[in-house]
Amino acid sequence: MKIPEKIGQIIGAGQDFLILAHNHPDGDAVGSVSALGRGLKSLGKHVDYYMDPEIEDKLGFIDEIELFKHDASQLAPKYDAVIYVDCSTKDYAYAPEQMPECANTIVVDHHKSNEGYGDENFVEITGAAGELVYLLLKDLGAEIDDDTKDALFTALSSDTGSFQFSNVTSQTHRIAAALHENDKIFSPISKRLHSEKSYAQMKMYGEAVHSLELHDDGQVAFIELPYNVIRKWGGALNITDDVSNIGMSVIPVIVSALAKETEPDVWRISLRSKSPYDIDVSEVSLEYGGGGHQRAAGCTFEGTEQEMRDALIPRLERLVAEAGEDICES
Amino acid sequence: MKIPEKIGQIIGAGQDFLILAHNHPDGDAVGSVSALGRGLKSLGKHVDYYMDPEIEDKLGFIDEIELFKHDASQLAPKYDAVIYVDCSTKDYAYAPEQMPECANTIVVDHHKSNEGYGDENFVEITGAAGELVYLLLKDLGAEIDDDTKDALFTALSSDTGSFQFSNVTSQTHRIAAALHENDKIFSPISKRLHSEKSYAQMKMYGEAVHSLELHDDGQVAFIELPYNVIRKWGGALNITDDVSNIGMSVIPVIVSALAKETEPDVWRISLRSKSPYDIDVSEVSLEYGGGGHQRAAGCTFEGTEQEMRDALIPRLERLVAEAGEDICES
Repeated sequence: MKIPEKIGQIIGAGQDFLILAHNHPDGDAVGSVSALGRGLKSLGKHVDYYMDPEIEDKLGFIDEIELFKHDASQLAPKYDAVIYVDCSTKDYAYAPEQMPECANTIVVDHHKSNEGYGDENFVEITGAAGELVYLLLKDLGAEIDDDTKDALFTALSSDTGSFQFSNVTSQTHRIAAALHENDKIFSPISKRLHSEKSYAQMKMYGEAVHSLELHDDGQVAFIELPYNVIRKWGGALNITDDVSNIGMSVIPVIVSALAKETEPDVWRISLRSKSPYDIDVSEVSLEYGGGGHQRAAGCTFEGTEQEMRDALIPRLERLVAEAGEDICES
Repeated sequence: MKIPEKIGQIIGAGQDFLILAHNHPDGDAVGSVSALGRGLKSLGKHVDYYMDPEIEDKLGFIDEIELFKHDASQLAPKYDAVIYVDCSTKDYAYAPEQMPECANTIVVDHHKSNEGYGDENFVEITGAAGELVYLLLKDLGAEIDDDTKDALFTALSSDTGSFQFSNVTSQTHRIAAALHENDKIFSPISKRLHSEKSYAQMKMYGEAVHSLELHDDGQVAFIELPYNVIRKWGGALNITDDVSNIGMSVIPVIVSALAKETEPDVWRISLRSKSPYDIDVSEVSLEYGGGGHQRAAGCTFEGTEQEMRDALIPRLERLVAEAGEDICES
């Protein structure tokens, strides 16, 4: 993977850098930005971060987040370069309306769709943007201390689903190996990113599994969390993201629904369909005034539990049936 | 990591090998045994496997399993060596009552408690026994083809919880990097090992979450699956590995126990402790004739549910208390 020489020259010659990432920054964005900033500071540079303040609690262990600026008036009027990290397009970046004057634009990104909107672009398809930040820091001779390693590991682990997705390559593991050198252990971070729950969140997850029903020869999974159950375990905030994936993890299931009664007789419905089946769950969500995509969609249903079940379950069965014989047999 | 030279000499000079692993072989045992056997066969050796037939369905993609023998009468009367894989003690191995005559005993294992019961022992503390098998196969110059890579990845990924546990080292990732070379993708295996479940397995997981109790101000998690519950959901084979991790995922917990009543009044106990706390759960398992490591250990308890609870819960609370004030405050 070749890093454009010009990037090293711009960073070497410059003093003040502004780092941006995308809206709702995830573990890869927050980790990559933090590692890049720390690395540049280790080289004696001044770094400002301008970042969307909506960051998941589980990333709170990355101390660099406290330095993230959210108010454009706190930025300098000019920088030697702005560095866009993990942003497939310029529009996708979280940026101040009035951008400071930046002598150079550098892009560090791993999205296939990135067309290279910077003056200098380090764009390669990798598991995580963090892989590119690691390579860049090594190339620059920056220090990679323990906090920087934590940020880089967070980037790698987040965007690869703990090294499980098909975007993982030999390079992803080579970098992870380098981060683990000198007996450094990342298991507390892995757990925080991928499995830790509060007692109430775990119990809520258990309630969801308890309610799991299969219909249509196991092709349709249906999960409901009634209002009293949600209340019992501390409210809808304790329903973790992975609850929506319970149905899809069950082997024969190709369509799944999660119905959360967030207020009495008001059900928030999340729908999922499994790749590679050609089933578009947004067909159903649109009928109830919701939205979404083929593989993940949502809507709201007002009515009693029985009314919701009577409407939704047969509709999902019909959705699967309409997709044709091929799917029913597979 | 130094491989005893004598192992290469025994394998080089011999022709017939018997490979054994522990009872209820998991992904590391099945993957390591299969990879070792395939590697030896690539060197022109004859290999017999004698293995416990109770193997989880999710490992069924490893074709080598079809060659596993379960009937001692199918074994040869003598071998050049028996190789014990992933067995901390000889007693822990699944072995025929009447062992064939074996000129040499080789041990390949990664358990701290292993005292080296072989004539030759390649025993090192690693994330998975599969790491040692990989190093041994490289040392022997054996072929590592795609099926062998799948078996080795299964071993690594299974015993490290998809690279999340504290047993992961730089070496674990270096080997994973080598397995990924030439764009080989392991995501279907990762999904199969870590998220896919049958309906019964998912329901069993839900029952475990339902039974979850916290003791000692949330520091000790206790989960039990009584015999009737295990029966209801198709038997102990439907208890997936991640059930042992439920307790550890709950935020304040530092020690967890899972008690499975596999036969009436026979409880198989799995214990876990969270890094970086200096708590060795094998202290408890050893008291009941079991084994394991600081972070993961197991034993069997015979008695009623009440007797098991009365013995185990206070013992775990004491284990935490003995670890000192530092932990209680953290």
